[in-house]
Amino acid sequence: MGKGTIKLDNAPSILSYGSAVGPKEGEGPLADYFDYIGEEAAFGENDSWEKAEVVLQKSAFRSALEKGQLAETDISFIFAGDLLNQCTCSSYGIRDFDIPFIGLFGACSTMAESLALASIFVESGLANNAAAMTSSHFCTAERQFRFPVNYGGQRTPTSQWTATAAGCAIVAPRESPPYIKAVTFGKVTDMGVKDVNNMGGAMSGAAHETISTHLANTQQSIHDFDMILTGDLGSVGTGLLIDLFKRDDIDIANVHADCGMMLYKKHEQDVHAGASGCGCSASVLCSLILGRIIEKKLKNVLFVATGALMSPTMIQQGESIPAVAHAVHISCE
Amino acid sequence: MGKGTIKLDNAPSILSYGSAVGPKEGEGPLADYFDYIGEEAAFGENDSWEKAEVVLQKSAFRSALEKGQLAETDISFIFAGDLLNQCTCSSYGIRDFDIPFIGLFGACSTMAESLALASIFVESGLANNAAAMTSSHFCTAERQFRFPVNYGGQRTPTSQWTATAAGCAIVAPRESPPYIKAVTFGKVTDMGVKDVNNMGGAMSGAAHETISTHLANTQQSIHDFDMILTGDLGSVGTGLLIDLFKRDDIDIANVHADCGMMLYKKHEQDVHAGASGCGCSASVLCSLILGRIIEKKLKNVLFVATGALMSPTMIQQGESIPAVAHAVHISCE
Repeated sequence: MGKGTIKLDNAPSILSYGSAVGPKEGEGPLADYFDYIGEEAAFGENDSWEKAEVVLQKSAFRSALEKGQLAETDISFIFAGDLLNQCTCSSYGIRDFDIPFIGLFGACSTMAESLALASIFVESGLANNAAAMTSSHFCTAERQFRFPVNYGGQRTPTSQWTATAAGCAIVAPRESPPYIKAVTFGKVTDMGVKDVNNMGGAMSGAAHETISTHLANTQQSIHDFDMILTGDLGSVGTGLLIDLFKRDDIDIANVHADCGMMLYKKHEQDVHAGASGCGCSASVLCSLILGRIIEKKLKNVLFVATGALMSPTMIQQGESIPAVAHAVHISCE
Repeated sequence: MGKGTIKLDNAPSILSYGSAVGPKEGEGPLADYFDYIGEEAAFGENDSWEKAEVVLQKSAFRSALEKGQLAETDISFIFAGDLLNQCTCSSYGIRDFDIPFIGLFGACSTMAESLALASIFVESGLANNAAAMTSSHFCTAERQFRFPVNYGGQRTPTSQWTATAAGCAIVAPRESPPYIKAVTFGKVTDMGVKDVNNMGGAMSGAAHETISTHLANTQQSIHDFDMILTGDLGSVGTGLLIDLFKRDDIDIANVHADCGMMLYKKHEQDVHAGASGCGCSASVLCSLILGRIIEKKLKNVLFVATGALMSPTMIQQGESIPAVAHAVHISCE
């Protein structure tokens, strides 16, 4: 196997999954697929947005446990992270559980990173049930990376809307689909983008790099997949990704979909270039997509969550935004 | 094996390791053991402290490569993280390398977390050579977590000095000592400490929890180890750890050492409760300790890096500081 790719011959199963979103996401096209839609974005935690995000992430985890008829004690490890400084919502959420915690940082690539590691642990017999999860919240992320929401800053056309959403998948030894067949961990790729309102541009190179690497290493082509699902390039990043593949004489447009363009109604909900945030790809995967794979409406999905490893400190110093993408091949076969 | 613990029957080797530190650390008792000591804390990067820390982390990685006679292309995966928001120094350092990157966040527990994951990947045949590394820098961390250094804030007696240091270990299939025999991933533990100048206090509970779990799961006692090496409780956290074990009728004091109390001269260097920061345990491990294990002066070391999962945002909201510790059993046998 080429560098970065790990084939999982035992093909562990996603035993169950859960999702939780805010009211805006609940008005979007995927509303019917989420396990929990909050009536308001504070989810009853009026103290702070950070505590609201903790509630959201725990809700996705609890949904996954319930749907899998699992108890907290059945989970061997939790792989989790989020966008907030010091992975706040993961740490503060998980302190309530008596489960070993492996903290990750991959920005919006965290759902693929956590799912890949959880799958490897189960594949290698190191865990019976391993949870992979992440979350994001519009109000926590905007304050940290750009401006506090009540500042009312004008959003640029390339900007994406950080999703208030969480997703959790629990991986277990092979039983029934969806199966995890292979994973590829990506390299850090820097396109030279310095605009914090153009995450899609910054991440498109990483998505191209990881998809290309996965296909080369597994000797597959885009035609081996029903869907190559990036999360979350948005419309700007999607255009760039299609252009990058055109240079390789590959027309990816027909097989490509992007979580960032699926979460909100394009014309009715004012999100400019689409959705972003760890919780975007996590909630789209752990609702519609895994459901479609179980129904065999999708047979082979390459889930490629992309992360802009963006530090406001480095941006203020004039640096560009590095990015990373990790890929997980999820199959019903 | 009990929850959280993974026994590595193939016992992979630490093939090589490297360390890099700043001038203050170079005046400490471990000066002879470091691969690189900077003449000044900017390491030639006068633009920003963040860029200086990037230089430091890359230096530790390059030392490990050189000492192991390895090329960049020999490394299958890098597991890395650091204290800075969005794991800045790891992402910006690693973008220069063509190596798949698995980003971690465990605060000061990152060296044990990365070493444990790298060892598991090698043990399971998923990687030939996997690098585990982390760094911290006094000037980047103090600005982010407390005050900018030039503010000249008064330091409290319980405060620890964030080390300007980095360490890197490269794990490879079993060949020669040091061997990795078992790892335990810890749970998030919260002692209710709310003082950002008392990290040792916040982390002592996590250290106690993870050491106890590792011993119970492996059916070992403290007498099976020459050294139980925490990183970095400092003098306050060490006192608390000894007290916590006394409650269990275990006298850990004789076998316990702490990286935070080894990096600086206790009386001559004004660091109050000791050293802290990811780079503290990383640089102490990847210099003196691994050397002593190779020389068989230390036979069995339980390396327990401890992390305060401290978010300034949550502290401002009146929240306490959760902590986590991960353990790695390193042996010459």
